[in-house]
Amino acid sequence: MPAPDLTADELRDQLEQARHEYGELLERGLSLDLTRGKPSPAQLDLAAGLLALSLDEDYTAADGSDCRNYGGLQGLPELRTIFSEILQVPVPQLVAADNSSLALMHDCIVHAMLSPLPGAEGRWVDEAVAFVCPVPGYDRHFTLCERFGIEMIPVPMTAGGPDMDAVEDLVRRDRRIKGMWCVPKHSNPDGTCYSDETVARLAAMEAAADGFRIFWDNAYAVHDLVDQLVEVGDLLAACAETGHADRAFVFGSTSKVTLAGAGVAFFGSSPANVAWFLEHDAIRTIGPDKLNQLRHVRFLGDAQGVYDHMAGHRKLVGPKFAAVERILSEQLNGTGLATWSRPQGGYFVSLVVDAGCARAVVQKAAEAGIALTPAGATHPHGVDPEDRYIRIAPTFPGQEDLETAIGGLATCVRLVGWGRRRHSGGTEEAR
Amino acid sequence: MPAPDLTADELRDQLEQARHEYGELLERGLSLDLTRGKPSPAQLDLAAGLLALSLDEDYTAADGSDCRNYGGLQGLPELRTIFSEILQVPVPQLVAADNSSLALMHDCIVHAMLSPLPGAEGRWVDEAVAFVCPVPGYDRHFTLCERFGIEMIPVPMTAGGPDMDAVEDLVRRDRRIKGMWCVPKHSNPDGTCYSDETVARLAAMEAAADGFRIFWDNAYAVHDLVDQLVEVGDLLAACAETGHADRAFVFGSTSKVTLAGAGVAFFGSSPANVAWFLEHDAIRTIGPDKLNQLRHVRFLGDAQGVYDHMAGHRKLVGPKFAAVERILSEQLNGTGLATWSRPQGGYFVSLVVDAGCARAVVQKAAEAGIALTPAGATHPHGVDPEDRYIRIAPTFPGQEDLETAIGGLATCVRLVGWGRRRHSGGTEEAR
Repeated sequence: MPAPDLTADELRDQLEQARHEYGELLERGLSLDLTRGKPSPAQLDLAAGLLALSLDEDYTAADGSDCRNYGGLQGLPELRTIFSEILQVPVPQLVAADNSSLALMHDCIVHAMLSPLPGAEGRWVDEAVAFVCPVPGYDRHFTLCERFGIEMIPVPMTAGGPDMDAVEDLVRRDRRIKGMWCVPKHSNPDGTCYSDETVARLAAMEAAADGFRIFWDNAYAVHDLVDQLVEVGDLLAACAETGHADRAFVFGSTSKVTLAGAGVAFFGSSPANVAWFLEHDAIRTIGPDKLNQLRHVRFLGDAQGVYDHMAGHRKLVGPKFAAVERILSEQLNGTGLATWSRPQGGYFVSLVVDAGCARAVVQKAAEAGIALTPAGATHPHGVDPEDRYIRIAPTFPGQEDLETAIGGLATCVRLVGWGRRRHSGGTEEAR
Repeated sequence: MPAPDLTADELRDQLEQARHEYGELLERGLSLDLTRGKPSPAQLDLAAGLLALSLDEDYTAADGSDCRNYGGLQGLPELRTIFSEILQVPVPQLVAADNSSLALMHDCIVHAMLSPLPGAEGRWVDEAVAFVCPVPGYDRHFTLCERFGIEMIPVPMTAGGPDMDAVEDLVRRDRRIKGMWCVPKHSNPDGTCYSDETVARLAAMEAAADGFRIFWDNAYAVHDLVDQLVEVGDLLAACAETGHADRAFVFGSTSKVTLAGAGVAFFGSSPANVAWFLEHDAIRTIGPDKLNQLRHVRFLGDAQGVYDHMAGHRKLVGPKFAAVERILSEQLNGTGLATWSRPQGGYFVSLVVDAGCARAVVQKAAEAGIALTPAGATHPHGVDPEDRYIRIAPTFPGQEDLETAIGGLATCVRLVGWGRRRHSGGTEEAR
């Protein structure tokens, strides 16, 4: 983002203009929220049929079991069949659980903390444990690491996924590296889709640690904004083919397909890992809510039903992402003050500003009533060392509110950015 | 159970009669299951209205939040209000979660393993940890201890709860004792209700360990078989009154109220413990399935609605417990071969046979197609040192099947018992 060649007068004019606009913004007394990747009420309305489903006449699973009673730890086979194709996991190796894939990731870490993983000698609680964390990344992944004392080793993202030279080098050398976070499709926050080469290298690379695992959080597996769906390679199969069958832990959910608070989540892995997970899960619970699983089966029908359902989301979400792109382009193109991602799916746009400016922009936006995810949330421990990344979550607000918020955010970028350029060392706007 | 004064001939006749009956039993080729405390389909039918509830027109909680979306970690306040009275926990100190109270117990142990409890110095994973385990008790509690390497120290049950002299002595002396299991009402398996004195002594007793906790699994809080409901003392309040505010971890669920696989579970404790739990739970999940909670609110209405609903269970379950009592009395009264509990609620009858005979009885029943919980399951590590306890779960089978199974079980008790008496040292039947 080189600064364009502006004369001192031009720069002063730009800053004046930004200050004027920001003053107007303050006067509007906004209260808008771009913080979290939540589906909008209109998106949730797409699942109204799920809420209307009555099960009182037929609560029986395909295998004849009564879904109202205890049992069925691995989840309904017919539900796993629907998501087997979507998550690229064979049905017998897929677990269907309750509403939170985050909970499944948490529990996998807990079980690994307290019992050796297949192929591992020790428990993580007895060892120094580190995870490779592609950055920018998902704050809740980082929080899981913090909670369990897992050191986070950042690796930069590239256009095709994490920098694989760096990843291979770290994982081959460092026995403490027991895991790695990946959001392989429409990654949080920058919308990256992992290339086939990245997937192949992740599967094939050498690992110094016994029991090294890739936490493959396929949260946006069917969340494309384009009609031609993006395909990401099958990590689980690639791991099996390269002799690392137990490497992949696959996660997914319907939180952003059906209902954010009342969906179903999935864990898929090798037969040994699934047996390991279920052995420990059986001590925790007698089984998931099979009725909610049955509702999902009846509502979605099959994998094609999921794709068809997602087309409805695309119609609602597409215009929001388009508005983000349009407004940022209108206000920031040619300024040299920011770049941003143009994702083909997922829930976020990554806005990258001058080094040292992200926090100031978020602060200015907050003062104008526009709540953004805290700057730094995209990095381990909430600290973006360059202070450049801002995560935009466009899905939840209505179209008009979103456009107002993005316009206001762009104003803040210009206010802070031109301020910095004019008074190198920072102005009151930039602090 | 002193043996009655039988002559050798009488004893031979009794054994012959039991052998004859057992032979007939084998010929029937039964396949009956008394293993688990599962509600019957007829009991689950009582919640048909819950399954028929449509939420597509109104998915809004009392506080205006959209139950379809993320959030609401502590669970719906209106649901917590209903169960506050039942579980004796103030609403702000009660957490409503997903379907499994076992999962909440598991997670409390996990969090205590990996982070100090309020008032505790260290993490359990770094210390020797032991739990007091009243026996007979619930096998899944014992399995949780086994899984986390927690030593189990058995204490015998009395008519009013655990032997409190023994409990007080252990807990006062042994710093390793960080916890204790309790099923205070209609205990699993012998149906004991804790006396007021027991509750008061549990609350007031000295504990050597910092962070000592009582895991108060109130699984059968409203599961009375008698019209005059049994009242058990309020441990949480008693702990607060005796200066041990953080001692009680209260658990409950609607698994045996509404739907075994799709109910809601509760955790209640002191404000400090609830904050501690939620702090860790927030890292695991963004919130429970609030729609299922909302269904429960609409279906149950209020605490009186729960009591009214339980009257329906009583009508279905009462005759089953009555049949167990009647058949065991008919077949075993006067033999001196067994005693059994006459619970006023809950899900189990405890059948106590001659020392060294329980396993043999369960084996004989299995050979005749009557599946029972493995002998020993009522004790830590699945080992009943005297081999006397058999747990009967009468709720799931239909009335006729249940009566057949209990009759068959009584035959096995006589077969094994008379055999033992005749050939002291054991016969082929008794091995």
